Order: sequence, then structure tokens, then C-alpha cells
Amino acid sequence: MAKEKLVKEITSMDEDFAKWYTDVVLKAELIDYASVKGCMIIRPYGWAIWENIQKILDAMFKETGHENVSMPMFIPESLLQKEKDHVEGFAPEVAWVTHGGAEKLEEKLCVRPTSETLFCDHYKNIIHSWRDLPKLYNQWCSVVRWEKTTRPFLRSREFHWQEGHTIHATAEEAQVETIGMLNVYAEFAEKYLAMPVIKGVKTEKERFAGAVDTYTIEAMMHDGKALQSGTSHFFGDGFAKAFGIQFTDKDNKQATPFQTSWGVSTRLIGAIIMTHGDDNGLVLPPAVAPVQLVVIPIASHKEGVTEKATEVYERLKKVCRAKIDNSDNSPGWKFAEYEMKGVPLRLELGPRDIENNQCVLVRRDNGEKTVVSLDELEAKVPEMLEAVRDGLYNKALANRSEKTYVATSMEEMIDVADNKPGFIKAMWCEDRACEEALKEKAGVSSRCMPFEQEQLSDKCICCGKPAKKMVYWGKAY
Amino acid sequence: MAKEKLVKEITSMDEDFAKWYTDVVLKAELIDYASVKGCMIIRPYGWAIWENIQKILDAMFKETGHENVSMPMFIPESLLQKEKDHVEGFAPEVAWVTHGGAEKLEEKLCVRPTSETLFCDHYKNIIHSWRDLPKLYNQWCSVVRWEKTTRPFLRSREFHWQEGHTIHATAEEAQVETIGMLNVYAEFAEKYLAMPVIKGVKTEKERFAGAVDTYTIEAMMHDGKALQSGTSHFFGDGFAKAFGIQFTDKDNKQATPFQTSWGVSTRLIGAIIMTHGDDNGLVLPPAVAPVQLVVIPIASHKEGVTEKATEVYERLKKVCRAKIDNSDNSPGWKFAEYEMKGVPLRLELGPRDIENNQCVLVRRDNGEKTVVSLDELEAKVPEMLEAVRDGLYNKALANRSEKTYVATSMEEMIDVADNKPGFIKAMWCEDRACEEALKEKAGVSSRCMPFEQEQLSDKCICCGKPAKKMVYWGKAY
Repeated sequence: MAKEKLVKEITSMDEDFAKWYTDVVLKAELIDYASVKGCMIIRPYGWAIWENIQKILDAMFKETGHENVSMPMFIPESLLQKEKDHVEGFAPEVAWVTHGGAEKLEEKLCVRPTSETLFCDHYKNIIHSWRDLPKLYNQWCSVVRWEKTTRPFLRSREFHWQEGHTIHATAEEAQVETIGMLNVYAEFAEKYLAMPVIKGVKTEKERFAGAVDTYTIEAMMHDGKALQSGTSHFFGDGFAKAFGIQFTDKDNKQATPFQTSWGVSTRLIGAIIMTHGDDNGLVLPPAVAPVQLVVIPIASHKEGVTEKATEVYERLKKVCRAKIDNSDNSPGWKFAEYEMKGVPLRLELGPRDIENNQCVLVRRDNGEKTVVSLDELEAKVPEMLEAVRDGLYNKALANRSEKTYVATSMEEMIDVADNKPGFIKAMWCEDRACEEALKEKAGVSSRCMPFEQEQLSDKCICCGKPAKKMVYWGKAY
Repeated sequence: MAKEKLVKEITSMDEDFAKWYTDVVLKAELIDYASVKGCMIIRPYGWAIWENIQKILDAMFKETGHENVSMPMFIPESLLQKEKDHVEGFAPEVAWVTHGGAEKLEEKLCVRPTSETLFCDHYKNIIHSWRDLPKLYNQWCSVVRWEKTTRPFLRSREFHWQEGHTIHATAEEAQVETIGMLNVYAEFAEKYLAMPVIKGVKTEKERFAGAVDTYTIEAMMHDGKALQSGTSHFFGDGFAKAFGIQFTDKDNKQATPFQTSWGVSTRLIGAIIMTHGDDNGLVLPPAVAPVQLVVIPIASHKEGVTEKATEVYERLKKVCRAKIDNSDNSPGWKFAEYEMKGVPLRLELGPRDIENNQCVLVRRDNGEKTVVSLDELEAKVPEMLEAVRDGLYNKALANRSEKTYVATSMEEMIDVADNKPGFIKAMWCEDRACEEALKEKAGVSSRCMPFEQEQLSDKCICCGKPAKKMVYWGKAY
């Protein structure tokens, strides 16, 4: 009954997905609202997920030769303005610091919305010769964008992220880096977050302000909407020229370097929630779950149960992030609580189990119960965590496959967009007017031109002229 | 010669300590100046030191039951103003955000100078019953204080730190926490940074804005000046009352909780530099050194040297943070470079060494060379890293002992303060007027009332009235 009560507090996904989402982030204690509108407090359980994401990604960055640095959080107005497209894209949504103490600043400072300009300013100081290249830098920090409409993790005025900024002697090397980091993101999303993604390149309209090309990984949420989950930008030499960064090449000539940037943010936590969550709450991929397994003693007033459960917990602590709940809440309440919190595995242990030298492992992703001998726990638990990951991945992939449609005419596009939430594959002439028409008539935006192209027809779905690219269209967070 | 050239670029410590410091932070590539005055770019080598500090401290915090969270970076003006002493202390030095995009904000926001007010606002939401207590929270972030005079790491407008904020049912429990975290800081400073510290309590004048008691660890720099290296504050129930935080206690009555906060910052990197550095540059304590040992092949053009050096490097990578320098720079240049960067151990390996199945290990702290059999490396290197830590600690302790004086009269105080940089122990009546007189006449401030009190005399050095406390006085960064 306790379980029912707790779960009833969550709105059902099918009833109201947006409300379900808000219920989950609050009731799983991921966030609390802050006094500043559009900002959030990330609570211990939410922050622990981000710490796990950071740990894995940071190791992947370091393995691929990147180093962490720390840039200031402020950008002088004049610095932000140096690259024309960039300032146009970001100036309308930055927070401005105008006073230090009681004094008005000579030049106002924006709180970084992203740090390209800061990195360029630094690169100009430290890069002189081809020997100084490449620089493969990254930073973990928070940035600020003064959004009108906000939602926890998905769009907030301050959010945490990492931003990689690299600079290279040649365009080719920078391009390899851009794609390389997109691949790191895709691998991370699929392997660790159990979240299938589509890799592709953004249309010009959806490109990052100042980029030559923006690459993206796009994921589909449970409700069929798209979530841009990571981007990697190739800048060509545009920023370097705007900032006057030059180096002496091997032939002793002055040359202009090429740059990239790439980032993922706490949005990924939103992606996890909306990809894997269900009506019982959060479902966490084991790799980033703060608690991977919770031990719940059954009938713990009976002799020996608490002791045996503690012994099992002590053993399992060594193979995964385990927790034991010895509180006086009922097992039913505990089941609901850890389901709500998305703990991948629950271990139940009662007097009869102890007699039989066994326990019951329950998977959060599908509720499957397995009786496991206590002697085999150290081997079985990692296997089952892996199985949960695979289960989540396959379920998400099935959801995406089911909700991916093809449209070969405008009528079809409008029909699908109106009635079937999901991705819509359709051919496009690469004309921005057609992209805008699709937004207006069908309410969809281009998600990406996937690396894996298909020839659905030879005509643009909108204007009928020769098609150049297959595009994924959809509604997005 | 290369070595000489490189080293000559650093000002000698005795000639100009401040300039020596600036030379070291720039030439060891710890920082670069940013376009915003008083802010700094922390470069990979500097940031890697901070990451090592974070890793060790974070584990110590978690072991003592603390959890990480993330608060927003902005504080609405009205929130900052809730605790009277606190706002008085911080308002004059905060950066104010007044505009979001083109729009003027209804209420201006300060960029957090510290986050007591944000934590209180959150605690008010989440604490209802004694079951919700204690909350033992910490966050790693950067904060902003609009200082007039700035120096890299020591005092900058933005700096990185951790801030612990805890809330408890009783004053006693909060006091135990306050002292407990001071002890964590002291242990960290002494064991990992090889930096002896004096633990004590601040005078009322030097207390944190809003605190009942501020505890501190004070370190002595090479030049005899003091550096406040970490503080831990007991707030009593002042903040809780100002913010209306209440809970239902075990007797079902409304009660007010008690709070603490505690922090250390990137100042610690300044402390490391000025405690251990010498005329050849940085000297890093092994626990936080990004590179603990560098392998330098000698006469690497000779057959087999590079191969053997690489083999040694591959072995040592498993026992410490090792690096090999196979570049075409001369060994002399490399020696100077890694001395400048403070790498604790250098391993030299040449053809003759290889013949004898040995290498030479050189300690950065004292230049001592030890011939070590290649068979014993895995055992010897950790031992020698430990020896470097001990060497650094003992040297710093000797410096502090040598530069700690006793004054029993005002004349003595003024004489020592004028002529002998260091700590001065003297008795005090606890009257603020005397503390201010000492500042005016001798130019010293109270560093702390140490836990280890001594009875130097029974009279206040300033007014001659009965003394209540022995105080460490000095000039401080």
C-alpha cells in the first residue's frame, strides 16, 4: 500500500509526459527549484549522476590526448563581439555584469554562454609556432543563457557542461578531431547511457553560431520527441582570423590555425530520464547510477536476517556501488522508493532465502526476478548490471525504430507530424526555404543529415526539386 | 647552459619574492592572465594540481559522510540581504548582474561570493523533521569577489574552491563538525601538501561575516608571511533564524537547527608555491604533482638508451604518475625544465647506467642523487616520493620554527615586526582596541588564537591588562 501511495504521486507518462517528467525530477530528489527563476539546485542524487558522467567522459577525453583547463566565467563585451556570427547568436541571451561592488564597470562583462572567445584570446597568447600545435583543451564548468522558457536539465539559465576547444595546424586535422569527438559522445551515449543515437551533421540553419559545420548526436525520447544530446563543431579558420591567431609553420611562414569545439551538458540527465524512465519513476543505466544495487532485508526482525544482509552488502560493495536499507520502513515502501530512484538492481533477502543459501535479484528495467545462489553473487551481479544496460538499450532502440517514419510527400509529412510523434525521414534539396516551410506547415525541424544516408526518393519533399540529402525531421526538446 | 639560461629568467627569491612568485606561476605555465582584470586562466599544468587536490579532498569529504550538490551561481539581492552581518561583509565586493539579454532584470542578482544564503534557502525547503538532519553538503565551484588588488591564486576576482555547508539538530553536533573539518584540512595540508599549519580560532575582528566562530589553519610562507589556508565556521542558529529554517524535533516541538560552513580554495596552489618553491622554480609535493617522476634518457643517440628508458618508464607508470621526455632538447635543458616545473623525482638513464643495470634518481627538494638498481625501481620510487614529502615538510617546519618569535612588550613586537618577517607569539586581553593598535603600530594582524596555548606572560602586550589568550600575529597574504 505504501508502494502504491508513493507511485500514485507520479503522473502517468501517457497521461501527461511533461508532468510525469517534472514529478520524476522532483520526487527522485534530483533537483530543487532555486530562488532565481530558470536556475536549479542539483541535489546529491542528481549530482552523483553527473559526477559519474564526468568521471567516464573525462577519462575518455584524457585517453584521446585532451587536457583540462579553466577559463574565467566572464567575457568582456568587446571580446564577445570579435566574431560576428558568434555574437549575433549569443548576445541576445547573455547575462550582463555591470557593477563590481558599488562601482559601475568601465566595460560590461557577460557571464560566459560558451567560451570560444576566451579560448581564442588565450590561444593568441600561447601559440607561436607549429610546435605549439595542436592544443587539445577541455573544461568542466557551468554556463549561462538567459532563456525565456526553462525546464530542469533540458533548458535552464545556468547549466553544467564540458566544452572542448582545440586548435590545429591544418583543416584536415581539425576535421578529424571534430568527428573523433562526436564518435566519443556516441560511444559514451550508447555504451554507458544505453541510449541509441543518430550521428549526423546539422543543416546550416541549425548550425552553432560561428561554425562551418555542426555535428550532432540525436536521441529519441520515450514520447517520440528528439533531444540533441551532444554537438561537435568545426570552425575552419574563422575564429582564428577574427582573433588574429597565427603561427609560424614548418616552412617558416605565417599561417592561420583551425579550430573545433564540442560539448555535452547536464541535458544528458534529462535524456536519461526521458529515454529510460517509466510510470514507477526513474530508470538509471548502471554505469552512471549512484547506487547500482540496493540490498533490502525481508522480515528483518527475524533472527540473522540483518546480519546476513549486511554480510551480502559488504561483499557486493566490492563489485559495484551497493547500498543497504536497514531502515524501519516496510519492504514495500522500500521497493517503491528505489524503483522511483531508478536503482538498476534490487536484492531481496529473507529468512527462507537464507535457509536456501540464495537471494532474489530484481531488475528495474523489466521487473524480472532471478533466484541467485549466494555463492555466485560476485559473478552474477556484474553480469546482471550488464544485462540491465542491454535491456535498456534494446528497449530504447525498439522505441526509436517503432517511431521512425518515412515521408515522401508533404501531405504524408504533415500527417505523420500531426499524428505520430517520432522521427520522420525525408529527402531535402538543401534549400533553407524548404526547411522553413516544413517548420511552418508540419511543425518539424531538421534534426540532422545522418551519416548513414538512404535514397528514399530523388525529390525534395517540399519543392520537388532534386534532393541532395536525407534528413531526420522531428519535434525537439 | 640551456639550464642556466632558463633559470636566469626567474628572479631570485631573496631579491624580490613577489616577482619570483609571478615568474614561477607564469614560467611553470600554471596560469595565463585573462582579458578581465583580476581573473586568471588556469593552464593544464596548474589545473592538474587542482584536480589532484580535489580528488584527495573529495574522498576525505565523502569518507566523513558528506555529499556533493550544486547550487546556482546567482543570488537575488533580497536573498543576500537576509542575514545582516553576512550582507555587510560581502555586498561591497560582489559582481552584480543587472541585465538578461537586452532586458533589465526586475531584481539584480549577485554572482555568489559564497553560498550560505543559497544553502539556507534550500534547507528551508527540504528540512522539516529531525529525520531530515543532519545534511552534510559540499560543492566544488568558483565564486567571485570584486577585489581591488589581485594576485594569481592568492587573491583573484574569480577563484575555485569547495564550500561545505552543513546543518544539524544541535549546536554541539555542529561544533563537532566545524572542528572535524578543520582537522580534515590540517591533515590534508600536512600529509599531502607537506605544509605544516597552525590550527586555531580567529579573533572576532577576523571572523567570517555571519559566523559565531571562525577556525583557521595558518601556514607560513618561505618569506615569513602568513597564508590563511582554510577556514571552518560555526554559525550557531543565526542563519537558520534569519531564513526561518525550523524542524520538528523528537519531542514533536518546533526547533531551530545549527549550521557550519568550511572551505579551501585554489589559494592552496599559491601556498604550495610559496612554501616549497626555490630559485629553480616550483617544487611540488608528490601527492598533488601532475608528474611525480620524469625519465630523462642521457646520450639517447647511443644504441639501446631510448628503448631501455621507455621500458623503465612503462614500468614506473604503474607505480606513480610518470612521464618520459624523448624530445631532442639537451638533457641540461630538460633538467632545468622539470626543475622549474617542480617534478619531485628525476630519473637519469645513460649507456653506462644501462651497462650497470642502474639509474640515477635525483630529488627535486634537495638535489640529492641516488644510484638505484633497475631491479628495485618499483620499490624505491614510492619510498623516495615519500622521502621528498618528508623532506619538504621538515624544511617548511624548520623555516617556520626559525621565523617564529615571542614578544612580551610592544617595543619588542614593533622591533620584530619591522625586522624579522615571521610569526610573533604574544599575549592579548581580547580587547579589539588592542588588536587594532597592534595593526597600527606594528603593522601586524592576528592570525589566530592557536589551540595549543602557551602562557608567555600574564599581561596583554598592548594595554598591560590581564591577558586571556596567546595569539599568533604576523603579516599576511
